Amino acid sequence: MTSPIMKTLACAALAAGSTLAAAQQSNVTIFGVLDVGVQRIKNGSKTLNLESIDGLQTSRLGFRGTEQLGGGLSASFHLEGAIGPDTGAGGDWRRRATVSLASKDAGELRLGRDYTPTFWNISRFNAFGTNGVGAASNLVYGFDGASGTAKTVIRSDNSVGYFLPDGLGGVYGQAMVAAGEGSTGRYVGARLGYAGNGLDVALGLSETTNTLAGDKFKVFNLGGSYAVGALKLLGLVHNSKQTTREQKNYVIGAHYNVGSGIIRVSHVNAHSRNTANGEDYTGKLFAVGYVHQLSKRTSLYTTLSKVNNSKTGRFLIPGGSAIALGDDSNGIEAGIYHSF
Amino acid sequence: MTSPIMKTLACAALAAGSTLAAAQQSNVTIFGVLDVGVQRIKNGSKTLNLESIDGLQTSRLGFRGTEQLGGGLSASFHLEGAIGPDTGAGGDWRRRATVSLASKDAGELRLGRDYTPTFWNISRFNAFGTNGVGAASNLVYGFDGASGTAKTVIRSDNSVGYFLPDGLGGVYGQAMVAAGEGSTGRYVGARLGYAGNGLDVALGLSETTNTLAGDKFKVFNLGGSYAVGALKLLGLVHNSKQTTREQKNYVIGAHYNVGSGIIRVSHVNAHSRNTANGEDYTGKLFAVGYVHQLSKRTSLYTTLSKVNNSKTGRFLIPGGSAIALGDDSNGIEAGIYHSF
Amino acid sequence: MTSPIMKTLACAALAAGSTLAAAQQSNVTIFGVLDVGVQRIKNGSKTLNLESIDGLQTSRLGFRGTEQLGGGLSASFHLEGAIGPDTGAGGDWRRRATVSLASKDAGELRLGRDYTPTFWNISRFNAFGTNGVGAASNLVYGFDGASGTAKTVIRSDNSVGYFLPDGLGGVYGQAMVAAGEGSTGRYVGARLGYAGNGLDVALGLSETTNTLAGDKFKVFNLGGSYAVGALKLLGLVHNSKQTTREQKNYVIGAHYNVGSGIIRVSHVNAHSRNTANGEDYTGKLFAVGYVHQLSKRTSLYTTLSKVNNSKTGRFLIPGGSAIALGDDSNGIEAGIYHSF
Repeated sequence: MTSPIMKTLACAALAAGSTLAAAQQSNVTIFGVLDVGVQRIKNGSKTLNLESIDGLQTSRLGFRGTEQLGGGLSASFHLEGAIGPDTGAGGDWRRRATVSLASKDAGELRLGRDYTPTFWNISRFNAFGTNGVGAASNLVYGFDGASGTAKTVIRSDNSVGYFLPDGLGGVYGQAMVAAGEGSTGRYVGARLGYAGNGLDVALGLSETTNTLAGDKFKVFNLGGSYAVGALKLLGLVHNSKQTTREQKNYVIGAHYNVGSGIIRVSHVNAHSRNTANGEDYTGKLFAVGYVHQLSKRTSLYTTLSKVNNSKTGRFLIPGGSAIALGDDSNGIEAGIYHSF
Repeated sequence: MTSPIMKTLACAALAAGSTLAAAQQSNVTIFGVLDVGVQRIKNGSKTLNLESIDGLQTSRLGFRGTEQLGGGLSASFHLEGAIGPDTGAGGDWRRRATVSLASKDAGELRLGRDYTPTFWNISRFNAFGTNGVGAASNLVYGFDGASGTAKTVIRSDNSVGYFLPDGLGGVYGQAMVAAGEGSTGRYVGARLGYAGNGLDVALGLSETTNTLAGDKFKVFNLGGSYAVGALKLLGLVHNSKQTTREQKNYVIGAHYNVGSGIIRVSHVNAHSRNTANGEDYTGKLFAVGYVHQLSKRTSLYTTLSKVNNSKTGRFLIPGGSAIALGDDSNGIEAGIYHSF
Repeated sequence: MTSPIMKTLACAALAAGSTLAAAQQSNVTIFGVLDVGVQRIKNGSKTLNLESIDGLQTSRLGFRGTEQLGGGLSASFHLEGAIGPDTGAGGDWRRRATVSLASKDAGELRLGRDYTPTFWNISRFNAFGTNGVGAASNLVYGFDGASGTAKTVIRSDNSVGYFLPDGLGGVYGQAMVAAGEGSTGRYVGARLGYAGNGLDVALGLSETTNTLAGDKFKVFNLGGSYAVGALKLLGLVHNSKQTTREQKNYVIGAHYNVGSGIIRVSHVNAHSRNTANGEDYTGKLFAVGYVHQLSKRTSLYTTLSKVNNSKTGRFLIPGGSAIALGDDSNGIEAGIYHSF
């Protein structure tokens, strides 16, 4: 009782030799990722075994499409929601839900729920992205309640974004404002970068009105990567700040291609301070992993990661038991990534 | 890693010249709308700026398909759910979830969650439909708790519907009953209309058991439109009643095509009374807007709307701050509509 | 504004005569079921009329696809969620959300949320499957809180499953372990069967850690079917046990093909005991139904079912009013099933 999808008329037109007719059809692309594995997290002396998800990329389902309007103008939409294949969770489109109007010369105007400009440096310029036990985001997102609760560390509701067009000699950039709608979450941010000759560098800046009292959550980050032969080096500085609290993160890492595999290593140094109560602690994450590509769409992977905290540190790899101040956090995982 | 969808066998059959083979394939159509804009609502002296959605049509995602069973008989399904692109909300199919058995001669039997017959006159016979700051439904739905809480003003769960077949000389019609399932929400309603020569008129009637005590929520509406050249005139009378409360709404409006654009104007007069407590107030909505069609699938639009209340009136354009009795409500919005 | 889906390039390749090109495209299949009907449930003297769903098969929406990796290896995904067409409910993928790596020779490794091995005997070896008023599962699932609350009677979160490959002379089988993740729900189970020459028999066994105290919920079942001409006979023994409570179920049934229709009959005998409090009661279900196939994808159906309880019995057909000990439960339904 299955029913794959097609547009018979467009197909008939093609069969009759008319490529043009098909090109004028509207179309929707379905895409997604399922990424499931097994994971062991040891926080202090407590070990927890889990079926883990999203070790390489976040599991998702999405629909997108673009309509050419003529004269270099196009309209497009993008709907994408997270899936939890361990429990079957899903249903919303909170990874991204946007409509865009774009011009080849003038750039793209994008409205809806979208990634914030400042997110992209965290994602692009560390060796494990923002997924799995080795991700730098495990420490970066740990900014003691502030970044964790800011609605705009990764994405923002109610956003209006602008993206520079292609063809600026490698320069790329985007800016976003998001309405607070009389509550918290008002965001203003931008990202500017350059990519060319194996080099990719970008700067991000943002300010979010994070409390009803008007406290600002501020992010600054600067990251880059450089690819030479089989090797890619990555580095990132990421600072978060809100009133008396501040966290600085330094991330370095590398990818090394070996046949159809990629070896990944990363080191993160995070330093959190709060001048209001004297809190001052650090955490270091070291991760190493291997991705074996069975095809462009399917990979097996494994990652080993260790977080060492200073005496009062509370950084951890998420998913395990609660951690005591100063305890180490260890994670190991192996999984299957499949995209469509 | 994208994967557009197709039925290779059906396509291969077409390539081989067999249109029949493809016509016998089952098929699913994906469709939807993303509509996002910016909006300013001023209720009394309080102004709120928002990223708005659904200013022209409601954002949605849906799947539908029809199977020809032979002899003029067909089976079909329709799944459609609302999307909130400002926040990524979505997931259910509460706009419509139905399965149908239809005969060319005898009409369509439809089961599931569907629009009520009485809804369609509100939607079809006013210039702004039921979307955006200018919609007559902003006043019609405001029936002081009764219509707002009746489960059947727009749609009904648990419905069994019947639709007249085509080919009745322009006469169309539908009837619906919906099970209360031992609770509230039992609905009985019908709509009968005629369309031809630019004229479209329809009458709707319904009764919903709206409380456990058995109170009936009753709707009567009569609407019509007449298109002549670039002009289309629209008019609607819509009455809602429950026990001692009653609201009468008179709506007139027009569409005027200008090149690839449409100018829209609408005026609504709503009168709400409750003989139990002497409440008696009116509200008037005046709206004007412009839709610029970039293509059949994509438009830009803007609408300006103003609601004037009588001394104790409480009608408003939704989405803004709370309103005080008698205050005016003002809305302005501009947005992008894109369908697929 | 509809947009059926296609991959124009793949289609163009086919039109040009290249079947190979299309076969290498990734693809996603959309599939689903909508099944809606009307139902009357009479428990004791209380009757309730409902719009019912899932009388023949559970309403659902799903996406799935397979990627050939070469050398007999393949990766695949399966996302499937329930839909409630009576109310438009839906959104998650809790029917199944899995990613698989499979080898023609070595079998399939499957991770995610999936059916438990022990579920399949309940589903396959009774005449009404697990749907509608006549389903044996109406009694089987009634295991006084234990099977009802065990997370693994039908499916399990966090599972790792293994399936035997084809080509073992009719022998089939699967095993599953599921992580409790520090809470309840740890599952270990397996199913082994043989299918050939009209015969299909299978044995299932499982143990679930069902409480934080470590109580085990244990299932044993053995079922079979035998098809000869237009007749198919089905039988099942299904035992559930947890500490002092136990329920034994004996199910027999038949399908008889009459032209494009199927007559279905089933009898279930359930016996529930709890040695801790002396509870000891039985229930018998007798059901008869007819399915009229309008096509492979679309059917009309009706089912009549009666549950007789012993003096303190509390078995019932779900969906109606509460039942008093010893009362009978009666159900009748008719509906439309449509798949895509």
